[in-house]
Order: sequence, then structure tokens, then C-alpha cells
Amino acid sequence: MSERTAAIVVVGNEILSGKVEEKNAAYLSKELLSLGVTLRCIVVVPDEVPVIAEAVKRLAQEHPVVFTSGGVGPTHDDVTVEGVATAFKRPLVRNAAMEEALNDVYGGNANEHVLSMADIPEGTEIIMGPGLRVPVLRLENVYIFPGIPELFQNKFEAIRDQFRSEPFFLECVYTQLDESSIAQALEHITKECPDVGVGSYPAWDNPHYRVKVTLESKQEPQVQKALALLGELLPPNSTVDPPPNS
Amino acid sequence: MSERTAAIVVVGNEILSGKVEEKNAAYLSKELLSLGVTLRCIVVVPDEVPVIAEAVKRLAQEHPVVFTSGGVGPTHDDVTVEGVATAFKRPLVRNAAMEEALNDVYGGNANEHVLSMADIPEGTEIIMGPGLRVPVLRLENVYIFPGIPELFQNKFEAIRDQFRSEPFFLECVYTQLDESSIAQALEHITKECPDVGVGSYPAWDNPHYRVKVTLESKQEPQVQKALALLGELLPPNSTVDPPPNS
Repeated sequence: MSERTAAIVVVGNEILSGKVEEKNAAYLSKELLSLGVTLRCIVVVPDEVPVIAEAVKRLAQEHPVVFTSGGVGPTHDDVTVEGVATAFKRPLVRNAAMEEALNDVYGGNANEHVLSMADIPEGTEIIMGPGLRVPVLRLENVYIFPGIPELFQNKFEAIRDQFRSEPFFLECVYTQLDESSIAQALEHITKECPDVGVGSYPAWDNPHYRVKVTLESKQEPQVQKALALLGELLPPNSTVDPPPNS
Repeated sequence: MSERTAAIVVVGNEILSGKVEEKNAAYLSKELLSLGVTLRCIVVVPDEVPVIAEAVKRLAQEHPVVFTSGGVGPTHDDVTVEGVATAFKRPLVRNAAMEEALNDVYGGNANEHVLSMADIPEGTEIIMGPGLRVPVLRLENVYIFPGIPELFQNKFEAIRDQFRSEPFFLECVYTQLDESSIAQALEHITKECPDVGVGSYPAWDNPHYRVKVTLESKQEPQVQKALALLGELLPPNSTVDPPPNS
């Protein structure tokens, strides 16, 4: 596969038990799409070193870029960094630049629990960016991000241009027909336009439409060809305007 | 591990591209917790048979129960059933009971695209439940659910008692201290009460508290022991009432 792909490993028992709503994967997926990168896998795992290590190792082999979210604070259940270290068989070593950044954030009062966040895998790159007080950590192709959505977004925005690939083109068509009536047309389009991803999303209870069809590709002419084909294949007057706030 | 665990494979390009918000994993996690089942892994994969098959096969070996969500409609991108069949190396065969259910739902007008949903892996169990018009499919330890949240929930509620294990006990403590100040106390509790899961969740911008600590276990006395220990270890007057709507 020549496209640039990515995966995210979300770490946290609180997500798996439904106590905290996961928001970073959805944010990241949209950001990556706008950068031309395809998110191919989201995995949520518990706060356990061997499980994190297994997921990171497997996904780092399959994708050019892997993100982790969560598990990077000062408490006993923050074990993501150790999980990433284990995935790459690296020892944890105290990093002076991280120690300085943490002391700065805690006004010189960083205790040993806080400073343990400066114990990072040997060979980790410390990435500073505009507005960041604590850097992003990168080991090989794995970027370590915090779980709190505001911090995840701050950090991603600070370094997002590192991940830019090619742009992506998307067209959406809304119809009052149901999925079974348009299935044949969509099948035809996937055969005629192999470079276009064709999506079909039934609305459960939307007054404006019954199915949203998406056509997307890195090649804009292909998207336009698929859009024209869909217009020809659907019965006259079967599409409707996009719903409000779509 | 003796506890009853589960995993969910969410299928859908629309989730990975951020076009549709995933809701079924969070719903399922809470439901399973109340049934005494621990959700150990959430995976989101694209609408591709080999990728679905790999995830289903791996997780079905690791967990007593696996759920799939999405990819079960009548269009070309609905390939979850084929993915599950591939995971277990079973051929797809037309099932008469499914055909009848689909014809019933479509008022006798089910076209061939709809009826293709009656092509299911050999050996699949058809599970009917109260209020269901289309059954839940089960192959080995894998339960196939639709992606539309209302349908997912309807189907789960119809058969939820099949998954009941033991009850789970949870206590929450809110504090105005920050994580670094309570880290030592929490570490002590995890050592003293190994059967209790101790969670620490910093609030980003909540006027009521700075950290929420959770203590949970299948053994209520253990949770109460951990709660008492936490009360002893934290400074006097450092906990606060739960925030509204918590």
C-alpha cells in the first residue's frame, strides 16, 4: 500500500469501563484526513505494560506512524512510556531535558512522582513545538501523547505539519432512497472507479435524508467521475440537499 | 486470568475518517461492567475482509466473548459477516430463517442485495430475542451486531442476560489535591489491596475537584478496605463532594 497510513493506541481502563468518553481518536482521524494521512486502526487497551507493548509493536510494524494517547501522568497507572520502551526493548533512562521541563512546569517543586515522567526510553526524541511546556516524545515511529483531550490537541497542533502527506478529496450525496435501492449503483461505481472509496451511511431518524453516500479519493478527477456516474445511475430527483450542520 | 473478559471489533471506514462518531463501544463497556464482564479491548478497523478477519481471529482466541459492530447492511461495503466467516474458515451459505426474517422486514419486497444478508457463515447460530425482527448472529464466541447505535442497543438489550457474570463494586473519591500529591497514597493502596483496580483521573477544568480516584473490584470488602485506607492516607479535609451529575 503506497498511501501514508497511521494507527492510534489509546491507553486507559477508564475508557474500557465507559467511565470516560474517548475523544482523541476522532479528533486525530479528522486532522490526519486533512493532512492526507489515512487512520487505519484505533485500538483501546488497558493500563498494562505487556498489552500496550504488544499493540504498539504490532502496529508500529504495520504503519509508518503510530500515536499513543493517555497513560503518561505521574501516578502508578501511567505506564504507556514503559509499554513503548518494552515494545522496542529499550531501557528507561532519566532525561535531563524532560526533567528541566517538568521542574519548570511545577515551579521547581516537582516531586519524585512527577520526575518519574523524565524516565523515558533510550533513544527517544524530545520534540518541542510552539506553545508547548512539556515536549512530545517520539521513539522510532511512535509518538506519545497525553490522554486529556485539551493537552492532546495542543500537542498535536504544535507539531501537526510533521505528518502532512497529500490532500484528500471528498464529495457527499444525500438521498431519500434506502440502501437496498442504491446498492447496485454503488457496486457499479466501485468497479468503474477503483481509486474512489465509496461509503454508504443510513440515517436512522433524520427528517432530511435516508442515506448519505460519500465518495473520496486522493485524486480529485476520480471523485468527480464517480459523482457524475452516481448522478446518472440514481433515478431523477432522488437526491436531496445536505442537512443543516452537515 | 479468571475474570470474564470481552473485546469489540468496530468495523467502519466512516469511524476511522472521523465522519461518524463511534458510540457502541462506550455503550457496550458500561453494559458489560454492570453484568460483571470486563471489556479488555476495543479495535476499530476498515471495511476490509482480511483486516476484519485478522482482528476477529486474534481477539476470539484471547477473550471468551467478542462483539462486532457495523458492516452488516446490504451494500458492497458491508463485509463484516464475510470477515467473520474468513476468521473461522467457514463458507457463506444462504440461511432460510434469515431470508424469512428479511422478507418479513421488507414486506416481501427484499431484493437480492437485501437477501445477501441471509448469506451467513456455516454453523452460525441465529439468536432471536424479545422485540427483534432480525436476529443476532453468533459464530463460535463472536456476536455480530449492527453499527447504527439504536439497533445495536435494541439487539444487545434483547439478549444481554446471556452475558451476565458477577457484579462489580465501585467507589469514587474526589479531591482538590493534584495527581502528584496523591501518587504515593495510591501506590500504597495498589500494594495493600491487589484485588482493587485503582484509577486516577485528573479533571482539566472542573470547578469542583482536581482529581477523581476510582476504586473497583468484584469483592466489595476489598473496595471498602481500599476506601478506608485512602481516607487515612490523604491529608484531613482534602476530599470534596461528588460534582453535580457525576
